[in-house]
Amino acid sequence: MAAHVQDVIMLLGDSLTQGGFDLNGFAAKLARAPVPQHHLALDMRMDVLNRGFSGYNTEWALPVFEQCFATKEEQKYAPKVRLLVIWFGANDAAPPPKAQYVPLERFRANLRTMLWTVSAPESARYSPDTRVVLMTPPPVSTGQRGRAQRAKEPPRENDREFETTRRYAEAVSEVGKTEGVPVVDLWGRLYEAAGRDEVGLEEFLTDGLHLNEKGYAIVFEELVKAIKENYPEYHYDNLKSVFP
Amino acid sequence: MAAHVQDVIMLLGDSLTQGGFDLNGFAAKLARAPVPQHHLALDMRMDVLNRGFSGYNTEWALPVFEQCFATKEEQKYAPKVRLLVIWFGANDAAPPPKAQYVPLERFRANLRTMLWTVSAPESARYSPDTRVVLMTPPPVSTGQRGRAQRAKEPPRENDREFETTRRYAEAVSEVGKTEGVPVVDLWGRLYEAAGRDEVGLEEFLTDGLHLNEKGYAIVFEELVKAIKENYPEYHYDNLKSVFP
Repeated sequence: MAAHVQDVIMLLGDSLTQGGFDLNGFAAKLARAPVPQHHLALDMRMDVLNRGFSGYNTEWALPVFEQCFATKEEQKYAPKVRLLVIWFGANDAAPPPKAQYVPLERFRANLRTMLWTVSAPESARYSPDTRVVLMTPPPVSTGQRGRAQRAKEPPRENDREFETTRRYAEAVSEVGKTEGVPVVDLWGRLYEAAGRDEVGLEEFLTDGLHLNEKGYAIVFEELVKAIKENYPEYHYDNLKSVFP
Repeated sequence: MAAHVQDVIMLLGDSLTQGGFDLNGFAAKLARAPVPQHHLALDMRMDVLNRGFSGYNTEWALPVFEQCFATKEEQKYAPKVRLLVIWFGANDAAPPPKAQYVPLERFRANLRTMLWTVSAPESARYSPDTRVVLMTPPPVSTGQRGRAQRAKEPPRENDREFETTRRYAEAVSEVGKTEGVPVVDLWGRLYEAAGRDEVGLEEFLTDGLHLNEKGYAIVFEELVKAIKENYPEYHYDNLKSVFP
């Protein structure tokens, strides 16, 4: 059995998070060995627990999140979650009649419930030592998505809308603003990197929806920047190794 | 705080393990999302805890391993280590006067102590549910190592010997055989892949000692093969996901 020798980074989200150990993804980079010259905020001095669930929206993820996060009673024996990264929207924004669709207001409410789960003293999972970062879903490239869907067996239709996902990304930013939680605006950052061009986004995506290695590199870069700005105590230089 | 929702794979070793999340390394691949078509034995249904310590030999790792592995008392509240991968030898084999040098007999004894720590009923850390795999150190390419060392500032000397590391790899295999623990013979597998040619090994190494992406790919492949053969209950098809 594993003793609790290191604190934890928990990554909560959908397939974009689940894939975070692939393609030199952001989970793998967060979990990697200390590389001081990169000035990484986080490294193997924390264990990375990937709680990304392919296909999930915020509605389905809420009860799973409760399973993943220890109650106050359990916290006595559980490793400390120093950082919680919450990354949803890519599936919530699937237009009806997709089963994954979650109305925008409900999406906002679900994100607030997730934040509240760890930040409200009256919550059974109150965890004052847990710092939280929200991330917006990446922009979709509907042309690329359509081609990827049609290439499936049997062929399917494009199942995302550029503008809808943009609104869900904005909703994440709004929730972060009103709740005082830092937001990594991947939607904006990737769209800028693509020259504000939907087709240009194909450079960062595998199928119009999921990120490729180049896309994940930006996720890692932006996440580390957000940690450095908002939680400087977690920056590499300020973390001590558990072991000599 | 993280609840114990998934079991754990613990990777114990030196810098070769520590780097396992880099370069699409074996730790990242073990931790990745389920990919049934790859018939991976292990996936994100278990959390990967990297306990690789750069520069460590078995002598220094022993007390650290005790810190990392829960005692019987602590095990009630700790996630279950279903698989423990022990990978040492690369530093133990550093010829004297390197401080890392551990005599061959002592190296064997230390590996046995590690195995005993989890397998002996009288051990404070006895853990009958933990399956163990030993891995041999990779072969060194002394020419490449010498060049890498001379390129450092200040320049250093080659600090490994091809034959010595080979003997430490053999010692790992012997310990596995006498203790009844499966061994992944990376030394043999990589040397074969290099056409039994020390210079050919450069294809799999970064500096004559550490693995590159191609080398790590073989580590992953061989480790999964060993799990499949020795612990078929851990094969992908036989693992249930904690979440739907």
